[in-house]
Amino acid sequence: MGNQEKNYTAAMIVIGNEILSGRTLDKNTQHVAIKLNEIGVTLREAATIPDIPDKIIETVQRFAKEYDYVFTTGGIGPTHDDITAETVAEAFGLKMEENPQARQLLEAHYAEDLTDARLKMAQIPVGARLIQNPVSAAPGFIVENVHVMAGIPKIMHAMLDNVLPNLVGGEPVLSESVSCFLPESEMANDLTDIQRDYPDLDVGSYPFFKDGHHGLSVVVRGTDIGMVKNAAIKVQDAIDRKKSERA
Amino acid sequence: MGNQEKNYTAAMIVIGNEILSGRTLDKNTQHVAIKLNEIGVTLREAATIPDIPDKIIETVQRFAKEYDYVFTTGGIGPTHDDITAETVAEAFGLKMEENPQARQLLEAHYAEDLTDARLKMAQIPVGARLIQNPVSAAPGFIVENVHVMAGIPKIMHAMLDNVLPNLVGGEPVLSESVSCFLPESEMANDLTDIQRDYPDLDVGSYPFFKDGHHGLSVVVRGTDIGMVKNAAIKVQDAIDRKKSERA
Repeated sequence: MGNQEKNYTAAMIVIGNEILSGRTLDKNTQHVAIKLNEIGVTLREAATIPDIPDKIIETVQRFAKEYDYVFTTGGIGPTHDDITAETVAEAFGLKMEENPQARQLLEAHYAEDLTDARLKMAQIPVGARLIQNPVSAAPGFIVENVHVMAGIPKIMHAMLDNVLPNLVGGEPVLSESVSCFLPESEMANDLTDIQRDYPDLDVGSYPFFKDGHHGLSVVVRGTDIGMVKNAAIKVQDAIDRKKSERA
Repeated sequence: MGNQEKNYTAAMIVIGNEILSGRTLDKNTQHVAIKLNEIGVTLREAATIPDIPDKIIETVQRFAKEYDYVFTTGGIGPTHDDITAETVAEAFGLKMEENPQARQLLEAHYAEDLTDARLKMAQIPVGARLIQNPVSAAPGFIVENVHVMAGIPKIMHAMLDNVLPNLVGGEPVLSESVSCFLPESEMANDLTDIQRDYPDLDVGSYPFFKDGHHGLSVVVRGTDIGMVKNAAIKVQDAIDRKKSERA
Protein backbone atom coordinates (compact mmCIF):
# COMPACT_ATOMS: atom_id res chain seq x y z
CA MET A 1 0.00 0.00 0.00
CA GLY A 2 2.87 2.43 0.62
CA ASN A 3 3.08 5.08 3.28
CA GLN A 4 1.73 8.38 1.95
CA GLU A 5 3.06 10.36 4.92
CA LYS A 6 6.20 12.42 4.66
CA ASN A 7 9.02 10.71 6.47
CA TYR A 8 10.59 13.18 8.90
CA THR A 9 14.30 12.58 9.34
CA ALA A 10 16.99 13.76 11.71
CA ALA A 11 20.72 13.44 12.21
CA MET A 12 22.84 13.85 15.29
CA ILE A 13 26.33 15.30 15.64
CA VAL A 14 28.19 14.40 18.82
CA ILE A 15 31.05 16.87 19.19
CA GLY A 16 33.77 15.94 21.62
CA ASN A 17 37.20 14.42 21.88
CA GLU A 18 36.17 12.75 25.14
CA ILE A 19 33.86 10.39 23.26
CA LEU A 20 36.45 9.57 20.59
CA SER A 21 39.16 8.93 23.18
CA GLY A 22 36.90 6.34 24.83
CA ARG A 23 36.85 8.27 28.09
CA THR A 24 33.11 8.89 27.98
CA LEU A 25 30.37 6.62 26.65
CA ASP A 26 27.90 8.57 24.53
CA LYS A 27 24.34 7.95 25.66
CA ASN A 28 22.92 11.15 24.19
CA THR A 29 22.39 9.63 20.75
CA GLN A 30 20.18 6.90 22.17
CA HIS A 31 18.16 9.41 24.15
CA VAL A 32 17.61 11.63 21.11
CA ALA A 33 16.69 8.59 19.00
CA ILE A 34 14.01 7.46 21.45
CA LYS A 35 12.56 10.92 21.97
CA LEU A 36 12.40 11.71 18.25
CA ASN A 37 10.81 8.38 17.58
CA GLU A 38 7.94 9.30 19.91
CA ILE A 39 7.06 12.29 17.74
CA GLY A 40 7.43 10.49 14.42
CA VAL A 41 10.89 11.68 13.47
CA THR A 42 13.45 9.05 12.47
CA LEU A 43 17.08 9.43 13.44
CA ARG A 44 18.86 8.44 10.24
CA GLU A 45 22.49 9.10 10.95
CA ALA A 46 24.82 10.05 13.80
CA ALA A 47 28.36 11.38 13.59
CA THR A 48 30.86 11.65 16.40
CA ILE A 49 33.54 14.17 15.53
CA PRO A 50 36.40 15.96 17.28
CA ASP A 51 36.60 19.62 18.30
CA ILE A 52 38.04 20.57 14.89
CA PRO A 53 36.38 23.56 13.17
CA ASP A 54 36.58 22.31 9.56
CA LYS A 55 35.15 18.94 10.53
CA ILE A 56 32.27 20.52 12.46
CA ILE A 57 31.48 22.92 9.62
CA GLU A 58 31.58 20.20 6.95
CA THR A 59 29.38 17.84 8.97
CA VAL A 60 26.82 20.52 9.93
CA GLN A 61 26.50 21.68 6.33
CA ARG A 62 26.14 18.15 4.96
CA PHE A 63 23.55 17.04 7.53
CA ALA A 64 21.56 20.30 7.42
CA LYS A 65 21.05 19.74 3.68
CA GLU A 66 20.28 16.02 3.91
CA TYR A 67 17.91 15.82 6.90
CA ASP A 68 14.90 17.71 8.24
CA TYR A 69 16.43 18.24 11.67
CA VAL A 70 19.98 18.22 12.97
CA PHE A 71 20.98 18.03 16.64
CA THR A 72 24.42 18.70 18.00
CA THR A 73 25.64 17.94 21.51
CA GLY A 74 28.76 19.22 23.22
CA GLY A 75 31.19 22.09 23.01
CA ILE A 76 29.04 25.04 24.13
CA GLY A 77 30.66 25.66 27.51
CA PRO A 78 33.02 28.45 28.64
CA THR A 79 36.43 26.85 27.92
CA HIS A 80 38.93 27.00 25.06
CA ASP A 81 37.79 23.65 23.65
CA ASP A 82 34.15 24.82 23.39
CA ILE A 83 34.03 25.87 19.74
CA THR A 84 30.66 24.55 18.62
CA ALA A 85 28.74 27.86 18.65
CA GLU A 86 31.22 29.79 16.51
CA THR A 87 31.75 26.94 14.06
CA VAL A 88 28.00 26.42 13.57
CA ALA A 89 27.74 30.16 12.90
CA GLU A 90 30.53 29.83 10.34
CA ALA A 91 28.79 26.87 8.71
CA PHE A 92 25.86 29.20 7.93
CA GLY A 93 27.97 32.31 7.18
CA LEU A 94 26.68 34.07 10.31
CA LYS A 95 28.51 36.40 12.67
CA MET A 96 28.53 35.88 16.42
CA GLU A 97 27.09 38.49 18.77
CA GLU A 98 26.29 38.86 22.43
CA ASN A 99 22.65 37.80 22.59
CA PRO A 100 20.82 40.14 25.01
CA GLN A 101 18.41 37.44 26.15
CA ALA A 102 21.26 34.98 26.73
CA ARG A 103 23.14 37.60 28.72
CA GLN A 104 20.03 38.24 30.82
CA LEU A 105 19.68 34.52 31.57
CA LEU A 106 23.32 34.31 32.64
CA GLU A 107 23.06 37.47 34.76
CA ALA A 108 19.99 36.12 36.54
CA HIS A 109 21.72 32.80 37.20
CA TYR A 110 25.25 33.93 38.12
CA ALA A 111 24.63 37.44 39.52
CA GLU A 112 27.99 38.87 40.65
CA ASP A 113 29.77 35.65 39.62
CA LEU A 114 29.25 36.38 35.92
CA THR A 115 32.87 36.22 34.75
CA ASP A 116 34.17 36.95 31.26
CA ALA A 117 34.55 33.21 30.67
CA ARG A 118 30.86 32.73 31.49
CA LEU A 119 29.88 35.67 29.31
CA LYS A 120 31.37 33.75 26.37
CA MET A 121 28.26 31.57 26.66
CA ALA A 122 26.10 34.57 25.68
CA GLN A 123 27.87 34.68 22.30
CA ILE A 124 25.27 33.30 19.89
CA PRO A 125 25.04 33.40 16.07
CA VAL A 126 23.11 36.43 14.80
CA GLY A 127 19.43 35.59 14.35
CA ALA A 128 19.52 32.28 16.23
CA ARG A 129 16.64 31.33 18.52
CA LEU A 130 17.65 30.30 22.04
CA ILE A 131 16.99 26.92 23.64
CA GLN A 132 16.32 27.37 27.34
CA ASN A 133 18.55 25.56 29.84
CA PRO A 134 16.74 25.22 33.17
CA VAL A 135 19.73 23.45 34.75
CA SER A 136 22.63 25.85 34.38
CA ALA A 137 21.21 28.84 32.43
CA ALA A 138 23.66 28.92 29.48
CA PRO A 139 21.31 28.41 26.55
CA GLY A 140 21.55 26.31 23.41
CA PHE A 141 20.30 27.72 20.13
CA ILE A 142 18.68 26.94 16.80
CA VAL A 143 20.03 28.09 13.42
CA GLU A 144 17.83 27.04 10.50
CA ASN A 145 17.25 23.31 11.13
CA VAL A 146 20.28 22.82 13.41
CA HIS A 147 19.68 22.52 17.16
CA VAL A 148 22.80 23.17 19.23
CA MET A 149 22.62 21.57 22.67
CA ALA A 150 24.89 20.91 25.65
CA GLY A 151 26.78 17.63 26.02
CA ILE A 152 26.07 16.99 29.70
CA PRO A 153 23.17 14.52 29.55
CA LYS A 154 21.06 16.19 32.23
CA ILE A 155 21.22 19.56 30.45
CA MET A 156 20.81 18.02 27.01
CA HIS A 157 17.65 16.19 28.12
CA ALA A 158 16.14 19.44 29.42
CA MET A 159 17.03 21.30 26.23
CA LEU A 160 15.59 18.56 24.05
CA ASP A 161 12.36 18.62 26.07
CA ASN A 162 12.12 22.33 25.29
CA VAL A 163 12.69 21.75 21.59
CA LEU A 164 10.46 18.76 20.91
CA PRO A 165 7.05 20.49 21.13
CA ASN A 166 8.10 22.79 18.26
CA LEU A 167 9.10 20.03 15.86
CA VAL A 168 6.79 18.74 13.17
CA GLY A 169 6.86 14.97 12.95
CA GLY A 170 4.98 12.21 11.21
CA GLU A 171 3.23 9.23 12.66
CA PRO A 172 5.18 7.75 15.56
CA VAL A 173 6.96 4.52 14.74
CA LEU A 174 5.59 1.60 16.73
CA SER A 175 7.35 -1.67 17.31
CA GLU A 176 6.74 -5.22 18.44
CA SER A 177 9.52 -7.56 19.55
CA VAL A 178 9.58 -11.34 19.50
CA SER A 179 12.49 -13.18 21.08
CA CYS A 180 13.54 -16.81 21.03
CA PHE A 181 16.49 -19.08 21.72
CA LEU A 182 17.06 -20.04 18.10
CA PRO A 183 20.15 -19.16 16.10
CA GLU A 184 19.59 -16.27 13.71
CA SER A 185 20.51 -18.34 10.67
CA GLU A 186 17.61 -20.77 11.24
CA MET A 187 15.14 -17.90 11.03
CA ALA A 188 16.81 -16.13 8.11
CA ASN A 189 14.61 -17.45 5.30
CA ASP A 190 11.34 -16.89 7.18
CA LEU A 191 12.35 -13.34 8.07
CA THR A 192 13.27 -12.61 4.45
CA ASP A 193 9.78 -13.77 3.43
CA ILE A 194 8.05 -11.69 6.11
CA GLN A 195 10.05 -8.58 5.19
CA ARG A 196 9.07 -9.13 1.54
CA ASP A 197 5.39 -9.49 2.48
CA TYR A 198 5.49 -6.26 4.53
CA PRO A 199 7.57 -3.77 2.52
CA ASP A 200 6.28 -0.82 4.60
CA LEU A 201 7.66 -2.32 7.80
CA ASP A 202 11.22 -2.70 9.01
CA VAL A 203 11.85 -6.29 10.13
CA GLY A 204 15.08 -6.26 12.12
CA SER A 205 16.92 -9.29 13.37
CA TYR A 206 19.21 -8.93 16.39
CA PRO A 207 21.14 -11.96 17.56
CA PHE A 208 22.38 -12.14 21.14
CA PHE A 209 24.19 -14.48 23.51
CA LYS A 210 22.64 -15.19 26.88
CA ASP A 211 23.49 -17.86 29.45
CA GLY A 212 25.63 -19.62 26.85
CA HIS A 213 22.84 -19.85 24.26
CA HIS A 214 22.35 -18.18 20.91
CA GLY A 215 19.18 -16.14 20.89
CA LEU A 216 17.43 -13.79 18.55
CA SER A 217 15.22 -10.76 18.93
CA VAL A 218 13.11 -9.86 15.95
CA VAL A 219 11.82 -6.31 16.00
CA VAL A 220 9.05 -5.23 13.65
CA ARG A 221 8.74 -1.47 13.25
CA GLY A 222 6.24 0.68 11.38
CA THR A 223 3.58 3.35 11.73
CA ASP A 224 0.54 1.10 11.18
CA ILE A 225 -0.08 -0.76 14.44
CA GLY A 226 -2.32 -3.36 12.80
CA MET A 227 0.28 -4.20 10.22
CA VAL A 228 3.04 -4.30 12.86
CA LYS A 229 0.99 -6.69 15.01
CA ASN A 230 0.19 -8.94 12.05
CA ALA A 231 3.81 -9.19 11.03
CA ALA A 232 4.84 -9.91 14.62
CA ILE A 233 2.33 -12.77 14.69
CA LYS A 234 3.86 -14.13 11.47
CA VAL A 235 7.28 -14.00 13.15
CA GLN A 236 5.97 -15.83 16.21
CA ASP A 237 4.34 -18.47 13.97
CA ALA A 238 7.61 -19.00 12.11
CA ILE A 239 9.47 -19.38 15.41
CA ASP A 240 6.92 -21.90 16.71
CA ARG A 241 7.16 -23.87 13.44
CA LYS A 242 10.94 -23.95 13.63
CA LYS A 243 10.85 -25.05 17.25
CA SER A 244 8.45 -27.90 16.55
CA GLU A 245 10.67 -29.02 13.62
CA ARG A 246 13.61 -29.13 16.04
CA ALA A 247 11.73 -30.91 18.83
CA MET B 1 58.75 21.27 19.72
CA GLY B 2 56.17 19.51 17.52
CA ASN B 3 55.58 15.82 17.30
CA GLN B 4 57.70 14.35 14.49
CA GLU B 5 55.81 11.04 14.57
CA LYS B 6 53.16 10.23 12.02
CA ASN B 7 49.75 10.48 13.59
CA TYR B 8 47.87 7.24 12.89
CA THR B 9 44.15 7.80 12.53
CA ALA B 10 41.06 5.64 12.39
CA ALA B 11 37.34 5.97 11.85
CA MET B 12 34.49 3.74 12.87
CA ILE B 13 31.26 2.95 11.03
CA VAL B 14 28.46 1.50 13.14
CA ILE B 15 25.96 -0.08 10.77
CA GLY B 16 22.57 -0.83 12.18
CA ASN B 17 19.04 0.43 12.44
CA GLU B 18 18.85 -0.91 16.01
CA ILE B 19 21.29 1.76 17.21
CA LEU B 20 19.49 4.57 15.35
CA SER B 21 16.09 3.48 16.66
CA GLY B 22 17.42 3.75 20.21
CA ARG B 23 16.77 0.10 20.88
CA THR B 24 20.43 -0.73 21.45
CA LEU B 25 23.12 1.44 23.05
CA ASP B 26 26.34 1.31 21.02
CA LYS B 27 29.30 0.46 23.22
CA ASN B 28 31.48 -0.83 20.39
CA THR B 29 32.79 2.61 19.49
CA GLN B 30 34.11 3.17 22.99
CA HIS B 31 35.79 -0.23 23.00
CA VAL B 32 37.47 0.38 19.64
CA ALA B 33 38.57 3.86 20.78
CA ILE B 34 40.24 2.51 23.92
CA LYS B 35 41.93 -0.41 22.16
CA LEU B 36 43.25 1.72 19.30
CA ASN B 37 44.54 4.26 21.75
CA GLU B 38 46.70 1.60 23.39
CA ILE B 39 48.55 1.02 20.12
CA GLY B 40 48.91 4.69 19.22
CA VAL B 41 46.06 4.99 16.75
CA THR B 42 43.60 7.83 17.29
CA LEU B 43 39.91 7.34 16.57
CA ARG B 44 39.04 10.55 14.77
CA GLU B 45 35.46 10.04 13.68
CA ALA B 46 32.56 7.65 14.11
CA ALA B 47 29.43 7.35 11.98
CA THR B 48 26.28 5.46 12.84
CA ILE B 49 24.31 4.71 9.68
CA PRO B 50 21.33 2.61 8.68
CA ASP B 51 21.31 -0.60 6.60
CA ILE B 52 21.05 1.40 3.36
CA PRO B 53 23.48 0.40 0.61
CA ASP B 54 24.20 3.87 -0.81
CA LYS B 55 24.85 5.30 2.64
CA ILE B 56 27.22 2.46 3.54
CA ILE B 57 29.10 2.77 0.25
CA GLU B 58 29.44 6.54 0.50
CA THR B 59 30.64 6.41 4.12
CA VAL B 60 33.12 3.58 3.53
CA GLN B 61 34.63 5.34 0.53
CA ARG B 62 34.90 8.69 2.31
CA PHE B 63 36.47 7.27 5.49
CA ALA B 64 38.82 4.87 3.62
CA LYS B 65 40.31 7.87 1.83
CA GLU B 66 40.49 10.14 4.88
CA TYR B 67 41.84 7.82 7.61
CA ASP B 68 44.57 5.18 7.96
CA TYR B 69 42.19 2.54 9.28
CA VAL B 70 38.44 2.06 9.09
CA PHE B 71 36.40 -0.33 11.23
CA THR B 72 32.82 -1.32 10.60
CA THR B 73 30.57 -3.19 13.01
CA GLY B 74 27.28 -4.88 12.26
CA GLY B 75 25.39 -6.38 9.36
CA ILE B 76 27.47 -9.46 8.55
CA GLY B 77 25.04 -12.12 9.76
CA PRO B 78 22.82 -14.49 7.77
CA THR B 79 19.60 -12.48 7.48
CA HIS B 80 18.07 -10.18 4.87
CA ASP B 81 19.16 -7.04 6.72
CA ASP B 82 22.83 -8.11 6.76
CA ILE B 83 24.13 -6.23 3.75
CA THR B 84 27.48 -4.95 4.96
CA ALA B 85 29.73 -7.46 3.16
CA GLU B 86 28.23 -6.93 -0.29
CA THR B 87 28.08 -3.14 0.06
CA VAL B 88 31.72 -2.91 1.22
CA ALA B 89 32.63 -5.02 -1.84
CA GLU B 90 30.69 -2.60 -4.02
CA ALA B 91 32.43 0.39 -2.39
CA PHE B 92 35.72 -1.02 -3.72
CA GLY B 93 34.35 -2.31 -7.02
CA LEU B 94 34.89 -5.93 -5.97
CA LYS B 95 32.78 -8.99 -6.70
CA MET B 96 31.59 -11.34 -3.96
CA GLU B 97 32.63 -15.00 -3.97
CA GLU B 98 32.37 -17.97 -1.69
CA ASN B 99 35.64 -17.84 0.23
CA PRO B 100 36.96 -21.42 0.59
CA GLN B 101 38.59 -20.73 3.96
CA ALA B 102 35.40 -19.10 5.28
CA ARG B 103 33.38 -22.10 4.08
CA GLN B 104 35.78 -24.44 5.83
CA LEU B 105 35.43 -22.49 9.09
CA LEU B 106 31.64 -22.63 8.87
CA GLU B 107 31.68 -26.37 7.99
CA ALA B 108 33.90 -27.12 10.97
CA HIS B 109 31.65 -25.11 13.29
CA TYR B 110 28.18 -26.08 12.04
CA ALA B 111 28.81 -29.57 10.55
CA GLU B 112 25.49 -30.91 9.24
CA ASP B 113 23.68 -27.76 10.41
CA LEU B 114 25.34 -25.66 7.71
CA THR B 115 22.22 -24.25 6.05
CA ASP B 116 22.10 -22.04 2.96
CA ALA B 117 21.43 -19.03 5.18
CA ARG B 118 24.62 -19.76 7.11
CA LEU B 119 26.56 -20.32 3.90
CA LYS B 120 25.75 -16.72 3.00
CA MET B 121 28.33 -15.83 5.64
CA ALA B 122 31.05 -17.45 3.49
CA GLN B 123 30.37 -14.85 0.78
CA ILE B 124 33.35 -12.50 1.01
CA PRO B 125 34.69 -9.84 -1.38
CA VAL B 126 37.27 -11.23 -3.81
CA GLY B 127 40.81 -10.81 -2.43
CA ALA B 128 39.74 -9.90 1.12
CA ARG B 129 41.68 -11.28 4.08
CA LEU B 130 39.57 -12.98 6.75
CA ILE B 131 39.29 -11.92 10.38
CA GLN B 132 38.91 -14.98 12.59
CA ASN B 133 35.84 -15.28 14.80
CA PRO B 134 36.55 -17.68 17.68
CA VAL B 135 33.03 -17.24 19.08
CA SER B 136 30.70 -18.24 16.26
CA ALA B 137 33.00 -19.04 13.31
CA ALA B 138 31.53 -16.67 10.68
CA PRO B 139 34.55 -14.47 9.88
CA GLY B 140 34.97 -10.77 9.36
CA PHE B 141 37.28 -9.52 6.63
CA ILE B 142 39.68 -6.79 5.56
CA VAL B 143 39.53 -4.96 2.24
CA GLU B 144 42.33 -2.42 1.80
CA ASN B 145 42.21 -0.43 5.05
CA VAL B 146 38.61 -1.35 5.95
CA HIS B 147 38.05 -3.91 8.70
CA VAL B 148 34.58 -5.44 8.63
CA MET B 149 33.54 -6.88 11.99
CA ALA B 150 30.44 -8.28 13.68
CA GLY B 151 28.13 -6.07 15.73
CA ILE B 152 27.67 -8.37 18.73
CA PRO B 153 30.14 -6.95 21.25
CA LYS B 154 31.58 -10.29 22.34
CA ILE B 155 32.37 -11.28 18.75
CA MET B 156 33.56 -7.80 17.82
CA HIS B 157 36.00 -7.78 20.75
CA ALA B 158 37.48 -11.11 19.66
CA MET B 159 37.79 -9.97 16.05
CA LEU B 160 39.45 -6.71 17.08
CA ASP B 161 41.92 -8.62 19.25
CA ASN B 162 42.84 -10.62 16.14
CA VAL B 163 43.30 -7.49 14.05
CA LEU B 164 45.23 -5.23 16.45
CA PRO B 165 48.62 -7.02 16.33
CA ASN B 166 48.77 -6.38 12.57
CA LEU B 167 48.15 -2.64 12.75
CA VAL B 168 50.96 -0.11 12.66
CA GLY B 169 50.46 2.63 15.22
CA GLY B 170 52.39 5.51 16.67
CA GLU B 171 53.25 6.26 20.25
CA PRO B 172 50.39 5.44 22.59
CA VAL B 173 48.53 8.45 23.90
CA LEU B 174 48.88 8.83 27.65
CA SER B 175 46.62 10.86 29.87
CA GLU B 176 46.41 12.39 33.33
CA SER B 177 43.15 13.54 34.92
CA VAL B 178 42.63 16.16 37.59
CA SER B 179 39.16 16.64 39.07
CA CYS B 180 37.72 19.29 41.35
CA PHE B 181 34.43 20.70 42.56
CA LEU B 182 34.80 24.04 40.82
CA PRO B 183 32.55 25.28 38.02
CA GLU B 184 34.17 24.96 34.60
CA SER B 185 33.90 28.68 33.91
CA GLU B 186 36.17 29.55 36.86
CA MET B 187 38.94 27.45 35.37
CA ALA B 188 38.43 28.54 31.77
CA ASN B 189 41.17 31.19 31.59
CA ASP B 190 43.78 29.04 33.31
CA LEU B 191 43.03 26.11 31.02
CA THR B 192 43.30 28.33 27.94
CA ASP B 193 46.76 29.43 29.14
CA ILE B 194 47.88 25.86 29.84
CA GLN B 195 46.65 24.66 26.45
CA ARG B 196 48.57 27.53 24.82
CA ASP B 197 51.75 26.65 26.75
CA TYR B 198 51.47 22.99 25.67
CA PRO B 199 50.39 23.00 22.01
CA ASP B 200 51.41 19.34 21.57
CA LEU B 201 48.99 18.21 24.26
CA ASP B 202 45.22 18.05 24.28
CA VAL B 203 43.82 19.75 27.39
CA GLY B 204 40.18 18.69 27.68
CA SER B 205 37.69 20.12 30.12
CA TYR B 206 34.70 17.97 31.11
CA PRO B 207 32.13 19.44 33.47
CA PHE B 208 29.90 17.15 35.50
CA PHE B 209 27.17 17.27 38.14
CA LYS B 210 27.61 15.13 41.23
CA ASP B 211 25.71 15.21 44.53
CA GLY B 212 24.21 18.54 43.54
CA HIS B 213 27.57 20.21 42.89
CA HIS B 214 29.22 21.42 39.71
CA GLY B 215 32.50 19.64 39.14
CA LEU B 216 35.14 19.52 36.48
CA SER B 217 37.51 16.87 35.18
CA VAL B 218 40.48 18.15 33.25
CA VAL B 219 42.15 15.53 31.09
CA VAL B 220 45.60 16.14 29.64
CA ARG B 221 46.50 13.84 26.77
CA GLY B 222 49.68 13.41 24.76
CA THR B 223 52.46 11.00 23.83
CA ASP B 224 55.22 12.53 25.97
CA ILE B 225 54.63 11.39 29.54
CA GLY B 226 56.90 14.06 31.05
CA MET B 227 55.05 16.82 29.28
CA VAL B 228 51.66 15.32 30.22
CA LYS B 229 52.65 15.15 33.87
CA ASN B 230 54.00 18.71 33.88
CA ALA B 231 50.82 20.07 32.36
CA ALA B 232 48.70 18.11 34.85
CA ILE B 233 50.72 19.70 37.68
CA LYS B 234 50.01 23.11 36.19
CA VAL B 235 46.29 22.25 36.16
CA GLN B 236 46.42 21.13 39.80
CA ASP B 237 48.28 24.33 40.77
CA ALA B 238 45.65 26.45 39.03
CA ILE B 239 42.87 24.57 40.86
CA ASP B 240 44.60 25.02 44.22
CA ARG B 241 45.05 28.75 43.53
CA LYS B 242 41.41 29.15 42.61
CA LYS B 243 40.30 27.26 45.72
CA SER B 244 42.42 29.43 48.02
CA GLU B 245 41.00 32.56 46.33
CA ARG B 246 37.51 31.28 47.11
CA ALA B 247 38.30 30.27 50.69
